[in-house]
Amino acid sequence: MRRVAAERAKRLLIRSFLSPQSSAAVSSPFSFISSSSAAAMSPASTPVVSLDSINPKVLKCEYAVRGEIVSHAQLLQEDLKAKPGHHPFDEILYCNIGNPQSLGQQPVTFFREVLALCDHPSILDRDETHGLFSADAIARAWDILDVIPGRATGAYSHSQGIKGLREAIAAGIASRDGFPCNADDIFLTDGASPAVHMMMQLLIRSEKDGILCPIPQYPLYSASIALHGGSLVPYYLDEASGWGLEKSELKKQLEDARSKGITVRSLVVINPGNPTGQVLSEENQRQIIEFCKKESLVLLADEVYQENIYVGDKKFNSLKKIARSMGLGDKDISLVSFQSVSKGYYGECGKRGGYMEVTGFSADVREQIYKVASVNLCSNISGQILASLVMNPPKPGDESYDSFTAERDGILLSLARRAKALEDAFNSLEGVTCNKAEGAMYLFPRIHLPKKAIEAAKAANSVPDTFYARRLLDATGIVVVPGSGFGQVPGTWHIRFTILPQEEKIPAIISRFKAFHESFMQEFRD
Amino acid sequence: MRRVAAERAKRLLIRSFLSPQSSAAVSSPFSFISSSSAAAMSPASTPVVSLDSINPKVLKCEYAVRGEIVSHAQLLQEDLKAKPGHHPFDEILYCNIGNPQSLGQQPVTFFREVLALCDHPSILDRDETHGLFSADAIARAWDILDVIPGRATGAYSHSQGIKGLREAIAAGIASRDGFPCNADDIFLTDGASPAVHMMMQLLIRSEKDGILCPIPQYPLYSASIALHGGSLVPYYLDEASGWGLEKSELKKQLEDARSKGITVRSLVVINPGNPTGQVLSEENQRQIIEFCKKESLVLLADEVYQENIYVGDKKFNSLKKIARSMGLGDKDISLVSFQSVSKGYYGECGKRGGYMEVTGFSADVREQIYKVASVNLCSNISGQILASLVMNPPKPGDESYDSFTAERDGILLSLARRAKALEDAFNSLEGVTCNKAEGAMYLFPRIHLPKKAIEAAKAANSVPDTFYARRLLDATGIVVVPGSGFGQVPGTWHIRFTILPQEEKIPAIISRFKAFHESFMQEFRD
Repeated sequence: MRRVAAERAKRLLIRSFLSPQSSAAVSSPFSFISSSSAAAMSPASTPVVSLDSINPKVLKCEYAVRGEIVSHAQLLQEDLKAKPGHHPFDEILYCNIGNPQSLGQQPVTFFREVLALCDHPSILDRDETHGLFSADAIARAWDILDVIPGRATGAYSHSQGIKGLREAIAAGIASRDGFPCNADDIFLTDGASPAVHMMMQLLIRSEKDGILCPIPQYPLYSASIALHGGSLVPYYLDEASGWGLEKSELKKQLEDARSKGITVRSLVVINPGNPTGQVLSEENQRQIIEFCKKESLVLLADEVYQENIYVGDKKFNSLKKIARSMGLGDKDISLVSFQSVSKGYYGECGKRGGYMEVTGFSADVREQIYKVASVNLCSNISGQILASLVMNPPKPGDESYDSFTAERDGILLSLARRAKALEDAFNSLEGVTCNKAEGAMYLFPRIHLPKKAIEAAKAANSVPDTFYARRLLDATGIVVVPGSGFGQVPGTWHIRFTILPQEEKIPAIISRFKAFHESFMQEFRD
Repeated sequence: MRRVAAERAKRLLIRSFLSPQSSAAVSSPFSFISSSSAAAMSPASTPVVSLDSINPKVLKCEYAVRGEIVSHAQLLQEDLKAKPGHHPFDEILYCNIGNPQSLGQQPVTFFREVLALCDHPSILDRDETHGLFSADAIARAWDILDVIPGRATGAYSHSQGIKGLREAIAAGIASRDGFPCNADDIFLTDGASPAVHMMMQLLIRSEKDGILCPIPQYPLYSASIALHGGSLVPYYLDEASGWGLEKSELKKQLEDARSKGITVRSLVVINPGNPTGQVLSEENQRQIIEFCKKESLVLLADEVYQENIYVGDKKFNSLKKIARSMGLGDKDISLVSFQSVSKGYYGECGKRGGYMEVTGFSADVREQIYKVASVNLCSNISGQILASLVMNPPKPGDESYDSFTAERDGILLSLARRAKALEDAFNSLEGVTCNKAEGAMYLFPRIHLPKKAIEAAKAANSVPDTFYARRLLDATGIVVVPGSGFGQVPGTWHIRFTILPQEEKIPAIISRFKAFHESFMQEFRD
């Protein structure tokens, strides 16, 4: 009986991602096969909860960034400790997620000074503190404490976040965009993910509600849509034109979804792109905004990589800035922008800070968003403080300004060099093509797998790019995410590779990768 | 058209809470009336998203702790600043939520020292640091950094939380209970709320799935069940026996729900009680465990007030400890215990730290819980560190031990005195009866409202206890939560009153409250 249930669950999993007939999925650019077979697990005797009695939306949800390859890497890491010398590498190189500080990136000093002082404000008055902390960090900590009711950094705040910090963030946004920003539009959140979930929860009523998402996409979107029971409506980015976003493709997919009875509610745009690294042009952004306005779609703008731009001919423009510069205001377009302290040059993933700026919603709907935020009380105050800091870093004249800019520019210039070195390396290999990382933290090279490799993958009951990634991991200790986790044009195979390993390690990573890829091609060349 | 939609939404809201015929609600101990009428709002012209096009589960969800009364208090607070002297009070006294530091409680020094050092580890080696921080805080910060891979407090951690911190928490639980605890059972979360949502998301498939919840209950449960589309199956605590939990009541409500086609999946127990303040006896806990085992229910144990015990004849026992002492292991009962850094003597609400200990689930279901955790990457690292600290505070011999115990005991003894003073005050009033707060942070006095007051409330389109709370706020600046937000036996009216205002303010609060209540009774006495 248990076995039957597990098998059924497994089939469900596979069906919901693979089958184009699946009722909810409009079309399926994903190719997951559940390789960690549920049937292989040993369940407790007569459990109260079994796989066939949990919420099927949970079963259906997949999150490839922390999937099978990472689990295997964690096992290998323990094995490396227990049996050093048993593998052809001596460390695991996590090139799978955008987690800079796990790979040795140092936190920005000014930000951490302020956080430490806000955590333990009683040292602010002490003489020794001036020997340990910069004067502007001390001043900033006082400023922040002054806007926190009762200076209580350990209290729940307003559910949208501390008003004074939202005002600072709004000022930072206004200065970035050149258009006003209202602190009441800011909802501070524990990173961007809970904000995305909140919007999906608000918009999705059933599998008949669709969300237009780029393919490839960051799998938070597919996971959140699955958890909330909606339908992902894919629009494909054009790899040949540097992951371009074509208006005609948006229109085609929207119409296709509508013809299947899907009410498309929203368009997700990730700019700079994850996993694809492109930076949208202003012209493209205007088209997107016009499209959303015309088709009555909520524009969900994932702008968490806004500070990660690596090419001189591109700059980041927020979609709100473009909309406002087109003369479109709050009454013309519903637009939510997500930002996070986890990305940028700061990369403070562990702090779980972020916000969404919510514009163009009626007061009654805004009240519903606030209600949902209030059920979770508030986001963590350190994350709130940090979000206010990254939107208002030290200014010329501040004691920390020079050291701050040196740290910031050092990180960003190094990331640009790493992106270029890896891009060049990928493009030098047989059967690999790779677009430039104009921004974000990833390259998304296409691996033109030989037929023999695809057959070998099938024989191993694995998706071809997962098969490749697993072989890469076993041979080199390099962890990447298979492209199938992000979606891709059927029949194409990719991997997502972060540009985050420390710069001095890049040459060794490149040579290990090259050696692996050459030997893989040798083994499977048609 | 808009007006129709808003009216429909309003009716929906009211129906889902008031009507016993509502399809999902098994019975309705709640008496919300949406007084912030949606129809009164001015929506933007032709909005993309309107109240009648959002997820109806969001509309249905209510969270009274931050409802109408608090919104009004926030307006009053602004008004007090703008026009001092225009109200019969000069400050707003928030007695509505368990937010100790917002009312002046100071954070525990040792905890904040460690957090500050972990935020800015580069000062750990500096001489001045020894003048500012205690030696054991410095040592503890080093210990913590040593268990964080790469000492990177700014990196995403394992999605269950940093392994070494989970091990410390598991050791703390084992020492508390006298039974082993496995670090792999711990899921660190941003406070307890996301953990509760995670379990509801796992268990609830449709409105045919029911969750047994105490009435009165902390409205996170009703909100989470509504958001996930399940049915709240109420079991009433017995006010006459000090909010006792009767096995016969559990059985009756379970059978009643089953007869209506509800699959009851889980039993929520809040111990110590919120909003009711009772501490369960061991005998009662054994009955609950036997009931869950017999009826195949997942036992969800909200144990966030485990350190808040104010009476000598009661102590906190975790439900897991009781289950293990009955000889019941992982294979016999599915049990999830929630803990938070927001409560206890530490009251670090703003840090959003917490964990759930998940026992008695099969490996495949556990993997699903892990997957959902991984979609949100991880909880904030400061919160994770703090959770490890509260479960492992300074020990005898540590430099901070004496000052730490003085801070802890000072807070807890003062809370006990405040609870007693408020309880006595309530019981001295005409038409008020109040059970003892054995634990937690609240009193839940019953207000025996005169018929005239109930009629006046109805005439004002308000729920009687909300009417009372609003009058209290307008007359005194004291903010409480109406009992209808927690659920109560129909026809009874309560308010939840935190014991958290600073001790020196309690006499003034009592006399203001008394004066208000007497004048209210004078006005409405039958």
